[in-house]
Amino acid sequence: MTNSVNVPVVSPSRVQAIIWADDHLRLLDQRLLPMEERYIECHDAAQTATAIHDMVVRGAPAIGITAAFGIAVAARGGEALDHAEAILAASRPTAVNLHWALTRQGRLWRNGADARALLAEAQRIHAEDIAQNLRMAELGAALIEPGSTVLTHCNTGALATGGHGTALGVIRSAWAAGRLAQIYHTETRPWLQGARLTAWELKQDGIPARMIVDGAAAHLMQTQRVDWVIVGADRIAANGDTANKIGTYQLAVGARAHGVHFMVVAPTGTFDLNCADGAGIPIEQRAAGELTRLQGRQIAPARTDAYNPVFDVTPAALIDAIVCERGVIEKPDCTKIVQLLGEE
Amino acid sequence: MTNSVNVPVVSPSRVQAIIWADDHLRLLDQRLLPMEERYIECHDAAQTATAIHDMVVRGAPAIGITAAFGIAVAARGGEALDHAEAILAASRPTAVNLHWALTRQGRLWRNGADARALLAEAQRIHAEDIAQNLRMAELGAALIEPGSTVLTHCNTGALATGGHGTALGVIRSAWAAGRLAQIYHTETRPWLQGARLTAWELKQDGIPARMIVDGAAAHLMQTQRVDWVIVGADRIAANGDTANKIGTYQLAVGARAHGVHFMVVAPTGTFDLNCADGAGIPIEQRAAGELTRLQGRQIAPARTDAYNPVFDVTPAALIDAIVCERGVIEKPDCTKIVQLLGEE
Repeated sequence: MTNSVNVPVVSPSRVQAIIWADDHLRLLDQRLLPMEERYIECHDAAQTATAIHDMVVRGAPAIGITAAFGIAVAARGGEALDHAEAILAASRPTAVNLHWALTRQGRLWRNGADARALLAEAQRIHAEDIAQNLRMAELGAALIEPGSTVLTHCNTGALATGGHGTALGVIRSAWAAGRLAQIYHTETRPWLQGARLTAWELKQDGIPARMIVDGAAAHLMQTQRVDWVIVGADRIAANGDTANKIGTYQLAVGARAHGVHFMVVAPTGTFDLNCADGAGIPIEQRAAGELTRLQGRQIAPARTDAYNPVFDVTPAALIDAIVCERGVIEKPDCTKIVQLLGEE
Repeated sequence: MTNSVNVPVVSPSRVQAIIWADDHLRLLDQRLLPMEERYIECHDAAQTATAIHDMVVRGAPAIGITAAFGIAVAARGGEALDHAEAILAASRPTAVNLHWALTRQGRLWRNGADARALLAEAQRIHAEDIAQNLRMAELGAALIEPGSTVLTHCNTGALATGGHGTALGVIRSAWAAGRLAQIYHTETRPWLQGARLTAWELKQDGIPARMIVDGAAAHLMQTQRVDWVIVGADRIAANGDTANKIGTYQLAVGARAHGVHFMVVAPTGTFDLNCADGAGIPIEQRAAGELTRLQGRQIAPARTDAYNPVFDVTPAALIDAIVCERGVIEKPDCTKIVQLLGEE
């Protein structure tokens, strides 16, 4: 075997957040962006689990890929793989992709696969994610008329995935195809993923964009031409209701009021057919301190009470298209979704 | 004359941002809130003008009152009042209230009024503003059903006015009358007036409230009961279109989509009948750096491009009521506004 990867797919992005470096894993520390571009080295499962837990890496697909490499470094170092699996699984207990990746690796090592084979599988998972993103990007970009202006939210790019990105992947490909007149992105409070990560990532790839505060989106739609709002998804219910970063629903309400189209870009793994609709998707509430402090500095009075939901749910009725790697679902509903997901 | 003020109106708020202290003016330095509660002393017109220019004090009514006191300290110190007037007028050249207050003082000193009379006039302007706010608060609170939940934006309270506040004055009075089940306020990016000032001011007065990020407003309306969005105004056109802090229009779009009522609270001085509608109101654009830096720290990559409008315009059609000191204009239009403003 001359090369452990048979899928020759690479992301067109310069941003490499997850790198296999001969005998260890290197992760771009996203907590330090955009001020500092520093990689953390993971030489065993524990270091990898800590990096996931401490959010060195974020974004569901990126977490899954990292966990797969965590098994690879553990196997290389002769660790007990059941223990490696357990600590990686516990690093972000609610991340679906993490468990999916560990299950895939577990099937191999429980059947006797060696370190080399487990590394090859991690690289395959990584490459497949990029391939999936490139396919979604192609499908999504085809929906965008030349000369369009788009607005995106949070960070759904090369940093959040294996490379290229979901919603930002569509924008990246549409930009490369010369279809975009202007790209806007929100800053995405409270964690500022737009300001910190999307702005940085687009700058790395030389893609021009303008940032707005989250509150300016409707004004932007009212006063400038905006053709598409394009977002990712954390979970999509059977009827198409979509949970995503807080602020997404507000963008969807604004888009509908201004005749702006609304696109959700997410791989089929994001669908949860056990949820009939958005009412079944639990919305994580986080601490008030995430709103009252920023980068360790107090920005509101101590003990200010805050309501801090991390996600919101956009009803399917406000979504014009869901783009996944198997195709585009226009005006999503339960029948169309089950039909597409059933085509194995 | 035993007392220079004949209007015995005081704000029910503990917050005193503008204080006359025997022989000088004390201004609460709003730039330091909420971390530090420090007053700046103004002993002459130049110190007062600098405080206005440097935004120690902000909010159109508060700026006007401060300028009136600036003439009073200048007269007390034997300064040339035409020079004092000129430097105060130049401190924030676009603030309408500032010029109105200076004109009112100018009429007096050009007719020979002494320092004592000019101080009395400044105190009258201050007391009249509070009285106006109390009247608006009474009218606005009467529109709110007992048990209501309200959401406000930016800071429109005792810090932005002579005392009590406009939109926050309505909320203060409705709270005192036992009509409110819950108060929410946004953090109001980019300047965080909600997080820094509204949270602080409400805490001073023991009024419980919960903060949300600007992006969470529609989710709040979707998942919790919200009865009223209540905001101030920077300028109101003849047809009722209202310019206010960026993010206001997005709240109005969200409110309409969720059957939430929308109230604008502003004194009659805010109306500009020379603007037929919102299209005639210029929207100030500010530097990208205001979005990429926060409290002196970089939060987005250097040279990130940003679109940073400070205000937006909410069409009259989305406004259920404009409350001013002369009365309430429900479903505002040009006829109703001209009728109310014409009643001198």
